[in-house]
Amino acid sequence: MAAFSSISPASEPLTVMGAGLVGSLLSLYLARRGHPVQVFERRADPRRAGFQEGRSINLALSDRGWRALEGVGVADDIRQVGIPMYCRVMHDAHGQLTQQPYGQDGQAIYSVNRGHLNRRLLDLAEAQPQVRLQFGQQCLGIDLKKQELHLLDAATQQEHTEPYTRLFGTDGAFSAVRGALQKTDRYDYSQQYLEYGYKELTIEAGPGGAWQLEKNALHIWPRGQYLMIALPNLDGSFNCTLFFPYEGPESFAALQTPADVVAFFGRVFPDAVPLMPALTEEFFTHPTGSLVTIRCFPWKYDDVLLLGDASHAIVPFYGQGMNAGFEDCSVLNQLLDQHGDTAWPAIFAEFQAQRKPNTDAMADLAVYNFVEMRDRVADPRFLLQKKIEAKISAQYPGRWTPLYSQVTFSHTPYAEAWTAGQRQDAIMARLMPHIQAEADFDRPEVQALVEQEMAAR
Amino acid sequence: MAAFSSISPASEPLTVMGAGLVGSLLSLYLARRGHPVQVFERRADPRRAGFQEGRSINLALSDRGWRALEGVGVADDIRQVGIPMYCRVMHDAHGQLTQQPYGQDGQAIYSVNRGHLNRRLLDLAEAQPQVRLQFGQQCLGIDLKKQELHLLDAATQQEHTEPYTRLFGTDGAFSAVRGALQKTDRYDYSQQYLEYGYKELTIEAGPGGAWQLEKNALHIWPRGQYLMIALPNLDGSFNCTLFFPYEGPESFAALQTPADVVAFFGRVFPDAVPLMPALTEEFFTHPTGSLVTIRCFPWKYDDVLLLGDASHAIVPFYGQGMNAGFEDCSVLNQLLDQHGDTAWPAIFAEFQAQRKPNTDAMADLAVYNFVEMRDRVADPRFLLQKKIEAKISAQYPGRWTPLYSQVTFSHTPYAEAWTAGQRQDAIMARLMPHIQAEADFDRPEVQALVEQEMAAR
Repeated sequence: MAAFSSISPASEPLTVMGAGLVGSLLSLYLARRGHPVQVFERRADPRRAGFQEGRSINLALSDRGWRALEGVGVADDIRQVGIPMYCRVMHDAHGQLTQQPYGQDGQAIYSVNRGHLNRRLLDLAEAQPQVRLQFGQQCLGIDLKKQELHLLDAATQQEHTEPYTRLFGTDGAFSAVRGALQKTDRYDYSQQYLEYGYKELTIEAGPGGAWQLEKNALHIWPRGQYLMIALPNLDGSFNCTLFFPYEGPESFAALQTPADVVAFFGRVFPDAVPLMPALTEEFFTHPTGSLVTIRCFPWKYDDVLLLGDASHAIVPFYGQGMNAGFEDCSVLNQLLDQHGDTAWPAIFAEFQAQRKPNTDAMADLAVYNFVEMRDRVADPRFLLQKKIEAKISAQYPGRWTPLYSQVTFSHTPYAEAWTAGQRQDAIMARLMPHIQAEADFDRPEVQALVEQEMAAR
Repeated sequence: MAAFSSISPASEPLTVMGAGLVGSLLSLYLARRGHPVQVFERRADPRRAGFQEGRSINLALSDRGWRALEGVGVADDIRQVGIPMYCRVMHDAHGQLTQQPYGQDGQAIYSVNRGHLNRRLLDLAEAQPQVRLQFGQQCLGIDLKKQELHLLDAATQQEHTEPYTRLFGTDGAFSAVRGALQKTDRYDYSQQYLEYGYKELTIEAGPGGAWQLEKNALHIWPRGQYLMIALPNLDGSFNCTLFFPYEGPESFAALQTPADVVAFFGRVFPDAVPLMPALTEEFFTHPTGSLVTIRCFPWKYDDVLLLGDASHAIVPFYGQGMNAGFEDCSVLNQLLDQHGDTAWPAIFAEFQAQRKPNTDAMADLAVYNFVEMRDRVADPRFLLQKKIEAKISAQYPGRWTPLYSQVTFSHTPYAEAWTAGQRQDAIMARLMPHIQAEADFDRPEVQALVEQEMAAR
């Protein structure tokens, strides 16, 4: 943290609306730089007894997220409660398993509990004397001209007005701060839903808190038009998520009774059902979540800046939503290092110019990976292609990084990763017709083709 | 109109929100089919003395619009006050002119005054005994469950509630009806602005109402990053529109004083300036309009359907905004013919399924044509390519229709036209390197290439 203490504290107070994952991390970054930070959050304090988590979902932390956590010195702390997942394990309709490593030896994504991570970041933020957290503060509106937040205090039910000099909107996909920006002239905005919803379910821990599936893996039940996934928890259970069409012959609309659910799950997820004793109860009591991509521009307005889901909500299929939001914090911190802690207009402008194309690319990648996860990972040809790609990558070190690795295990800007990935996909499409088995890769004619493609890049 | 009288009148009253071009034409269609129609319009009656037109803009009516007008028997009537424009006339920075025909001999788009057309359609709608028009009725909100419109009466300033059984939202790009749909679950919505605004200006009539530029043409001053166009009026004047960046070295922001405007126009539009005596006054008193593309889905909700700009506002560069809205009316009428006047749920579902991909394609085409109009039409190579395309089209009748003609002079669905146009563009990109002048088209090697391309299609 030596770098921070060399920056002279700025007296100007900063306001953060939203104390979720991105808001709490951002507050920590800003406070460590010496800024007084005022944080408002709509929900109650998640660290209080009796707080009901909105979502108990697990998240997959990867390199971009870790770097952001390292920047405020909390990565080691979080790593202790994360479970490394080194591979995907695919479950077919007969319960047969196939696995595919995510990266090279030792590379993993980490299953982390959202609530735990959020509470830890709030503790750390609050430990900074210049951070003031206020919960139960719903943003009813913003007067962008007067620089005032209109808030409703949940405890007193009183409306109050808070002035701000600089406002960071980290209030998520349905951001009230963005809502104010959307009312300004010529505001580009888009919200697009998948025709799929999701339902959270549970695979229980075995006797003595044992994991009933391979612990260090992300489990996928790919079924073409839909899928279920499971991520491990520390207590031996797994959080499952079913991604499923709203309408159609196999859909939420088609499963109306416990008998429907039991019959359907028994048929398509036969190895999982015995591990899910609360299946029907959870299916009918847990809400069905929707899957939205939100894009907007600009992200800034005078002294207001959006970060995280507020400016770029994406679907969860690449496990990059939180990582992208955390990377926003790292990038903002870098810009503060470069420009100094008072050059806000230049920093806000450069932040949106730099981040917008990258989060747009990430939004596309997330939808692309939905098709991969629900369909392609069940195809032996696809898994063979992944193996061949790994061989090319090993044969040409530094010259070929698989797309998944670029997104997950690198800090290459998302847009660059996506462009490189599309080029590599085109090459694989030309190579694969010549390859029927892993060993074919070493055949001279295949090697000649690979060499030719690599020379042409 | 024989077809209409054979349909037995339905007693169910229909509600139309918005009496602009599409709303008034739709009301006419519905009334002629025997439906009682209740029409609400936010603005005052444009036929009343003292009504101030919001926009005096001219529109380019083309085949899709004409067919829709023919469907209610008003095409001949409108054609008398339209001015055919057979070609584009490009004005370069030295006042030199080049022209390019829009289609084959006799094919034209028609300059029509928006206000005149709207008033005429309102007259015709009102002449139907089962149509009831009410002006000054602002839609404040809609209760989709109770099927109620909340309106504010401009004259009395009283709010009132009107029930509806079937509601058609034809209230334009900033539709209040769409606003209600946007609040429903999982609503796809996008608004995207160009970084360009537009300003309406006037080229005055000459002595005795003479046209000071070629009357039967659409005039374009293409300047790479911006452009001005002019469409003829019956009184000898032209309506000009400058499409211009908001920001930058040549932009609205850069022209702050009358002297700035005179210097800029004198330099870049030297032949037009002498014909625009009110230039500086108009430049600073006329508003700067913005250019938005709006997409949304679904277009229907239970008994509500959006049509026209309310569901698919596009930028004006292909002259298809009104034509697409009018085509909505023709398509809805065809579906009523096919399914009968009571099968509304099926008709609404088919309408949006059929129209959505087409208006999405039209939105893309309109942006594509912006680049063509402001930049490519000034390029001699581009004009040569258009001539060669016309020759191919003549040589292979029925097998090659230029994209512009498919959009403007045909009823081919927009999405099909766009796909065919992209294929043809790719062919032209391969042919043009072999062609330096119009005569090259007849060279045997070029003819062989053309034959080969046509055989491969």
